[in-house]
Amino acid sequence: VIFDAVRKRLEQKQDWAGRRVLVTAGPTREPIDPVRFITNHSSGKMGYAIAAEAQKRGAVVTLISGPTSLGAPAGVEVVPCQRASEMRDLVMEHLENCDVLVMTAAVGDFAPADIQKEKIKKSGDRPLVLNLQPTPDILKEVAAKKTHQIVVGFAAESENVVQSALDKYQRKQLDLIVANDISAPGIGFQSDFNQVQLIRGVDNIETLPRLPKHEIAGILLDRIRDLSK
Amino acid sequence: VIFDAVRKRLEQKQDWAGRRVLVTAGPTREPIDPVRFITNHSSGKMGYAIAAEAQKRGAVVTLISGPTSLGAPAGVEVVPCQRASEMRDLVMEHLENCDVLVMTAAVGDFAPADIQKEKIKKSGDRPLVLNLQPTPDILKEVAAKKTHQIVVGFAAESENVVQSALDKYQRKQLDLIVANDISAPGIGFQSDFNQVQLIRGVDNIETLPRLPKHEIAGILLDRIRDLSK
Repeated sequence: VIFDAVRKRLEQKQDWAGRRVLVTAGPTREPIDPVRFITNHSSGKMGYAIAAEAQKRGAVVTLISGPTSLGAPAGVEVVPCQRASEMRDLVMEHLENCDVLVMTAAVGDFAPADIQKEKIKKSGDRPLVLNLQPTPDILKEVAAKKTHQIVVGFAAESENVVQSALDKYQRKQLDLIVANDISAPGIGFQSDFNQVQLIRGVDNIETLPRLPKHEIAGILLDRIRDLSK
Repeated sequence: VIFDAVRKRLEQKQDWAGRRVLVTAGPTREPIDPVRFITNHSSGKMGYAIAAEAQKRGAVVTLISGPTSLGAPAGVEVVPCQRASEMRDLVMEHLENCDVLVMTAAVGDFAPADIQKEKIKKSGDRPLVLNLQPTPDILKEVAAKKTHQIVVGFAAESENVVQSALDKYQRKQLDLIVANDISAPGIGFQSDFNQVQLIRGVDNIETLPRLPKHEIAGILLDRIRDLSK
C-alpha cells in the first residue's frame, strides 16, 4: 500500500507545487429563525474536486466550505462556515496568503434582514412576509483588494448563460469564469458530472463536453496554470 | 454471520409483528426558484431510528422522508419527497393502509407563494420581498380522515415547550405527542441524542432523560404499543 502510494505520487505531475490555492465550495445558509434557513442545491462536489486535484498536483490548498455532506479531501485544510457574511470574512482573511482563488461556492445572494430569535409560529392561514437583503458581494470585495492573485469565478445560470457569465467576468475583474447551465438535466448541482464553458472574454470561450467533475477540475487547473501573470 | 443474524432475530422481541407503521422524517424543502429553497435543520435521525426499531420488532414500516443524508433502514420502504405538499399527498395516500402514524418530520410551515421559474438575480443593493403562505396542515387533515389509526406527533419548540405541545396534542387530536426543546444545546436537530417529553395530556407527561435517539425510539414504541385502542 505504501509502495503504491509512493509510486502514484511519483507518477502524479507536480505542476502546482509551491502554489497556494484557496477554494470556496458548497452552499451557504442564511437563518430565518432557530429552525429555518434559506439555502441552495449546491453539493460542494465541484469545489472539493478542485481542492483535491490541486493538492495532488502539489499545491497547498485551503478549502472554505459551506455545509456539505462531503469528507475533507486528503491533505487539504477545510475551514467550515455557514452564512455568506462568514464566508466573506474567511475569504478576505485568507486572500493575501494565496496565489490562486477559485470561487466555486454557491453563495446565497439574499439573507433575511432580521433573524428571529424564536421559531416563527404558523397562525392559521396568515401569510408571512420575509424581507431579504443582498449579502456581501465577495468577488467585488476581492477585486478591490487583490494584488497578484489569479481569481477564478463560477456562474450558475438558468438563462442567458454565456452573456451573464461574460458580464460577471468583466464586472468582477476575473481572470477566468466557469459557466454552467443549471437548467440542463443530469449535470450541475448534486451530480458527479457537469458541462461547462471556460470563459476569458467574448472571443475566448472553451466549451467542454459533459465530464465527471474531477476531470473538469483537472482541465481547469491546466488552464489556470497556463494563464500568464 | 447468518447464525448471528438468526440468533439476534430470535432474541429480538417481535411485539410489533403484524402492525403497519407509517413514519415521516426529515425536513421539507420549499423552492424559491430553481436554485434556492427554504428548509430547516432536521436531520431525519429520530424518524429513521423509529422506522428501524419498529421494523426490527416485527412491524411492516413505510418511511416517507424529506431530503436527508441517511441510508434506508434495512427492510423499510422509503418513499422520498421534497415539499410539504408532496409529503401531505403521500401521507394521505398511505394513511388508510397503516395502523400507526408517527409524524417526526419537520414539515416546513411556510412556502413561497410563487416559485420563480428562473434564478432570481441580485441587483445591486435592492432588497427582495418574499411572500410566504402556510403549507398544508398535515396533522389536521389526518385528524379529519383517520379511522382506527394511532397518531403520534412531534413538537419542536424554542419556547413554552410543554404548553405548545399540549395545545398541538389537543388541536390535532393526537394519541401522543413528543415534545423537545430545540433551544437546549447538544440535543435535537442533527444530534444523535435528544431529550424529550412524552405527553398525553396535562396530567400525563413523561420526561425522559437525555438518550440516544434509537433508545428514545424504543421507549416510544413501548408506549405506543401500550396505548389501549
